Amino acid sequence: MHAYRSHTCADLTAANVGESVRLSGWVHRVRDHGGVLFIDLRDHYGITQVICDPDSPAFKAVEKVRSEWCIRIDGTVKARDASLVNPKLATGEIEVYARDLEVLGAAGELPLMVFGEQEYPEETRLRYRFLDLRRETMQKNMVLRSDVVSSIRKRMWDKGFREFQTPIITASSPEGARDFLVPSRLHPGKFYALPQAPQQFKQLLMVSGFDKYFQIAPCFRDEDPRADRSPTDFYQLDLEMSFVTQQDVFDTVSPVIAGIFEEFGKGRKVDAPADWPLISYRDSALWYGTDKPDLRNPIKMQVVSEHFAGSGFAIFSKLLEQEGTEIRAIPAPTGGSRKFCDRMNAFAQKEGLPGMGYIFWRDGDNGMEAAGPLAKNIGPERTEAIRLQLGLGVGDAAFFLGGKPEAFEKVAGKARTVIGEELGLTEKDRFAFAWIVDFPMYEKDADSGKIDFSHNPFSMPQGGIEALAGDPLKVLGFQYDLACNGYELISGAIRNHKPEIMFKAFELAGYGEDEVRRRFGGMVNAFQYGAPPHGGCAAGIDRIVMLLADTANIREVILFPMNQRAEDLMMNAPSEPTSDQLMELGLRVIPKE
Amino acid sequence: MHAYRSHTCADLTAANVGESVRLSGWVHRVRDHGGVLFIDLRDHYGITQVICDPDSPAFKAVEKVRSEWCIRIDGTVKARDASLVNPKLATGEIEVYARDLEVLGAAGELPLMVFGEQEYPEETRLRYRFLDLRRETMQKNMVLRSDVVSSIRKRMWDKGFREFQTPIITASSPEGARDFLVPSRLHPGKFYALPQAPQQFKQLLMVSGFDKYFQIAPCFRDEDPRADRSPTDFYQLDLEMSFVTQQDVFDTVSPVIAGIFEEFGKGRKVDAPADWPLISYRDSALWYGTDKPDLRNPIKMQVVSEHFAGSGFAIFSKLLEQEGTEIRAIPAPTGGSRKFCDRMNAFAQKEGLPGMGYIFWRDGDNGMEAAGPLAKNIGPERTEAIRLQLGLGVGDAAFFLGGKPEAFEKVAGKARTVIGEELGLTEKDRFAFAWIVDFPMYEKDADSGKIDFSHNPFSMPQGGIEALAGDPLKVLGFQYDLACNGYELISGAIRNHKPEIMFKAFELAGYGEDEVRRRFGGMVNAFQYGAPPHGGCAAGIDRIVMLLADTANIREVILFPMNQRAEDLMMNAPSEPTSDQLMELGLRVIPKE
Repeated sequence: MHAYRSHTCADLTAANVGESVRLSGWVHRVRDHGGVLFIDLRDHYGITQVICDPDSPAFKAVEKVRSEWCIRIDGTVKARDASLVNPKLATGEIEVYARDLEVLGAAGELPLMVFGEQEYPEETRLRYRFLDLRRETMQKNMVLRSDVVSSIRKRMWDKGFREFQTPIITASSPEGARDFLVPSRLHPGKFYALPQAPQQFKQLLMVSGFDKYFQIAPCFRDEDPRADRSPTDFYQLDLEMSFVTQQDVFDTVSPVIAGIFEEFGKGRKVDAPADWPLISYRDSALWYGTDKPDLRNPIKMQVVSEHFAGSGFAIFSKLLEQEGTEIRAIPAPTGGSRKFCDRMNAFAQKEGLPGMGYIFWRDGDNGMEAAGPLAKNIGPERTEAIRLQLGLGVGDAAFFLGGKPEAFEKVAGKARTVIGEELGLTEKDRFAFAWIVDFPMYEKDADSGKIDFSHNPFSMPQGGIEALAGDPLKVLGFQYDLACNGYELISGAIRNHKPEIMFKAFELAGYGEDEVRRRFGGMVNAFQYGAPPHGGCAAGIDRIVMLLADTANIREVILFPMNQRAEDLMMNAPSEPTSDQLMELGLRVIPKE
Repeated sequence: MHAYRSHTCADLTAANVGESVRLSGWVHRVRDHGGVLFIDLRDHYGITQVICDPDSPAFKAVEKVRSEWCIRIDGTVKARDASLVNPKLATGEIEVYARDLEVLGAAGELPLMVFGEQEYPEETRLRYRFLDLRRETMQKNMVLRSDVVSSIRKRMWDKGFREFQTPIITASSPEGARDFLVPSRLHPGKFYALPQAPQQFKQLLMVSGFDKYFQIAPCFRDEDPRADRSPTDFYQLDLEMSFVTQQDVFDTVSPVIAGIFEEFGKGRKVDAPADWPLISYRDSALWYGTDKPDLRNPIKMQVVSEHFAGSGFAIFSKLLEQEGTEIRAIPAPTGGSRKFCDRMNAFAQKEGLPGMGYIFWRDGDNGMEAAGPLAKNIGPERTEAIRLQLGLGVGDAAFFLGGKPEAFEKVAGKARTVIGEELGLTEKDRFAFAWIVDFPMYEKDADSGKIDFSHNPFSMPQGGIEALAGDPLKVLGFQYDLACNGYELISGAIRNHKPEIMFKAFELAGYGEDEVRRRFGGMVNAFQYGAPPHGGCAAGIDRIVMLLADTANIREVILFPMNQRAEDLMMNAPSEPTSDQLMELGLRVIPKE
């Protein structure tokens, strides 16, 4: 017989009754029922009930074991009484009568229990991650993650992509976040950087003619931690294709993403790629108050300025006299009660706005009537025009925000989310996707008035070099995001592969040719030797798994995450270097003041 | 029609004759045959011949294109004359008559040619890697690498393993090489380390109950560069299993490795796993002079001390009076000529030994006779006894080395290799594998006399805690390597999962419990909470691909390798940090003297 097991803890059924078996695993739970000991023996695959009574030569040894000891059991498979069969357990028809026990690894007093899925502080869980990971939810999350990554790989290969590994110790990458640096020993005083993304390398691969590249790529950004972001490394599905348009990228990646959500969504509805809308960045901001809209929420905001211009509601009508201002409405079907409207108004105040005006429609003495202070101020005709524009009726409400859109858009987006959720309008158990397109290439800094790139400087401007001759703020890029349920799942672009357009694009943002060559020399140089048109995108693996696992904390889907202070308490990282290490690297630590 | 291509450059056959098509790719070669222009248009998939004559509206544009320009062609598929059909080309039956051309990316003067596979200095190749990678050999090597990695993954999944990603920014790992450090911004003066291997994490995964783990894992060692080693990062197939013996690991990984070599070996013979010998570390040193023997070479060295003890060959007989000395023979079938023997003797002298004595056997006047100075000195009886022991005959030779084995073993191994190759004994076109087992746990430092670990301190000593009570130098570990054609492909061990045995093992090497806890706290702590017996191994991906691609230079199988000074000339890494970066990290560069 094998030294440790003849079967896993998920294998044995009624068909094995009478067999001598050997099992290894952990003591999930141990109970004493009137002198008979019951052990739930657990391994990665399942749980088997082991019993032992004083007639067994193993009884004394079994009496000593405690939760989470790792043990080996030899015994005989017995059928359970019909009344004791557990249909929820794969091995629920049987139990194993123990005749021998070997302690493979004893356990001290446990800082956290594996059985029962109790809550523990995150610091405890991370410090004892090896125990935390034994818990059923964590085992499931990690298995899910592994299966998702594997399925992504398979789907990408099926689409004719090959996976290539790009360097991890390399030069600074132009992603705009902060690099992790790695001091060089062979070149003291010089540093490598860990890649924020394989952006330059994947573009170089296109220049090298590899045509279709993907990678489940580790990425590194030295960012301040938050709940949905790992403070150090994270993984993305990184892909790039040559000789493609934006639509080709969508047609390639949409079925991969949809397929993953269908395969692992546990029956939740997944919108078919053919139904994923293409929404311009500006429309998304207008309709949803964000560039990552949650389309499970049917609310779509609208501009209603015309109904307030010159109206009796002085705040809005005066506001509209200023340039660049607008009034927008958030329709709230079924939200037509004063109580609800006041609560939403309070929400807006809590978010730092003066409040949200509202109108709601109810059955009055003479049929439908519009209620709320706004309705009175603007009068019945305007009120009715608004109602008709928004398609609302009795029992519905509408909220209004005014000013410069940049100033209220974000709160409007949040209000839309809260309204959708509170009114039960937002569908549960659904994954709703939208491609956000036509991102502006440039933005003007509010303080300095300086023009800078609003997103990725390496995207191809729509209209090419000619478009760059006009107003930079009107230039759109072939740049796109995929939004899902309010998260940005994918970001990508058709790249600017023409050196002359690239230099011009950087010039508009105030970067000279020298600086561009200095910072992105590898890529710019390559583009002078026959660069193909190319584009691609990157999808956040951790975020996809978070959505599938229905958690909002990224640390629930990473095996060994750092804590929120970017520390690994279990492995003790970061730690003090030795003076020899510093000496070899030619570095000195500046003493704290 | 698609913006860039209706077909790839490998698609078109006689079946497409008459069709209007659009192709995009690179100008592999352009020729002018009597006013008709021929372009070999190349993409990732193949080459298509494009022709253009002065009747075509595209002629003027086609005249301008040069090698490695990236272009789009619109044209008509034409059948080639039967005499011009090229059966070596997938598209050899047709050519495309160009009617329109768009330059997608022009190219300047080329620092290296893609067509023709010329030799260039490595620095040129790495600086213009994006061009170097366009060459057929490099495309093939990278595709091979990608396919090998994918096949390994598939084979591991088929064996019930899941892939899990372990942290890359983490704490120092106990692999014994030098760490790359990463300064922490949030904790100035403290450093993370990049993992030399996921050793501790994979063991923690076993403690967490994941049972079967693998990962195509990036590993980082700050080592001085050499031809078969990347100076920064490299990849390994890392795997670990719970509840296993050494033989279980062999049975798991051997078919994976054999399968890969069969799938990608291009018909070269692959020894079946059932035929892979298990050779003890000591036998391997004796028989082959190395722990990574090349078994394609049939030569097996033997101890022949008894035939020289007290013999007339004073050098050897005196040597044997010293403790710990031996005489070993390298049999050299078909090496029986003075010329060859003298050349091998000279080889040994070049390697720093006084020389190699030899005997060779030839047809003499009275039948077989033994020639060479040694034979005379020891006389015919001893000479004949040696011949019989080694199984040699007329036309064969044997070489002899004496002294303490540690002093000559390495040269003996090299001599064995040279002899095998020069005599044509070493089989070509074969992959020969052997598991090397029973590595000693400890060795004695020749100078200090101190006992230290000879290999991995985390391996389980054979015989457990009892074995550690005796002579440390006699303790063997459950540690193993897989050798293939003279390379170490895999290294692994059954781990020491018992804290008490681990502390004892470290104590023998002079490490106190405190130091062990300080250096390997994460893992040691975990072992106190129910650790399972476990073991695994790691296989070098780069090395496997090198063997399959039949190259001895690791940079031929890595997309963007560093040069031998650990520099990336294309991306300019490493480079000077900005003073802001240093300030944020709390570091100062020590000025050069």
